[in-house]
Amino acid sequence: MTVSPAPQAATTRPDDALPVAGLLEVLEALADPVRLEMVRRLDPDGTPAPCAVLYDGVGKSTASHHFKILREAGVIERSVVGGKTHHALRLDAVEERHPGLLRGVLASRD
Amino acid sequence: MTVSPAPQAATTRPDDALPVAGLLEVLEALADPVRLEMVRRLDPDGTPAPCAVLYDGVGKSTASHHFKILREAGVIERSVVGGKTHHALRLDAVEERHPGLLRGVLASRD
Repeated sequence: MTVSPAPQAATTRPDDALPVAGLLEVLEALADPVRLEMVRRLDPDGTPAPCAVLYDGVGKSTASHHFKILREAGVIERSVVGGKTHHALRLDAVEERHPGLLRGVLASRD
Repeated sequence: MTVSPAPQAATTRPDDALPVAGLLEVLEALADPVRLEMVRRLDPDGTPAPCAVLYDGVGKSTASHHFKILREAGVIERSVVGGKTHHALRLDAVEERHPGLLRGVLASRD
């Protein structure tokens, strides 16, 4: 009997993406300097980026806390690419529930 | 010599409207249940509304604190109409600095 090795997935989704939260929760998720910067550094096209490139100046556990708030608001989703945790922006999902909001946030550079 | 009485203005602006703040400050101003409700109750056309119709469930001094945060972010402006303090939404000014943001907030009802 031969056992094939499990295929090595390039990308896995350990968590299903959560539903996009109501307006207040999404605003609360975005209204923080660390989290706003994370969102701004993510590709609007939804390409996953490794955690480490998404923040500066805070420790890893603080960053995890902020990623969790964004994820629970439905603004980002988590995936594992090449064994490393990545995050991706859920622009379409957020726009579907709150049209214009996240696009407005991304368009504003100040 | 005759001195004419000062004309009784229907509306006076005791404060110049403040510049619209940067994105983070505007998001922080909106990301609060009392302030979000105030913004939602204001006429998008900028018609001033008396303070008292813009909130429930908090005291007058708490409401004043929230109005101040919105005003300092440039989201609302204060005026006096018939001797009473009113507030008006500054949709055009906010849209000019952060296109799409406040319209997105107003459009989302959940």
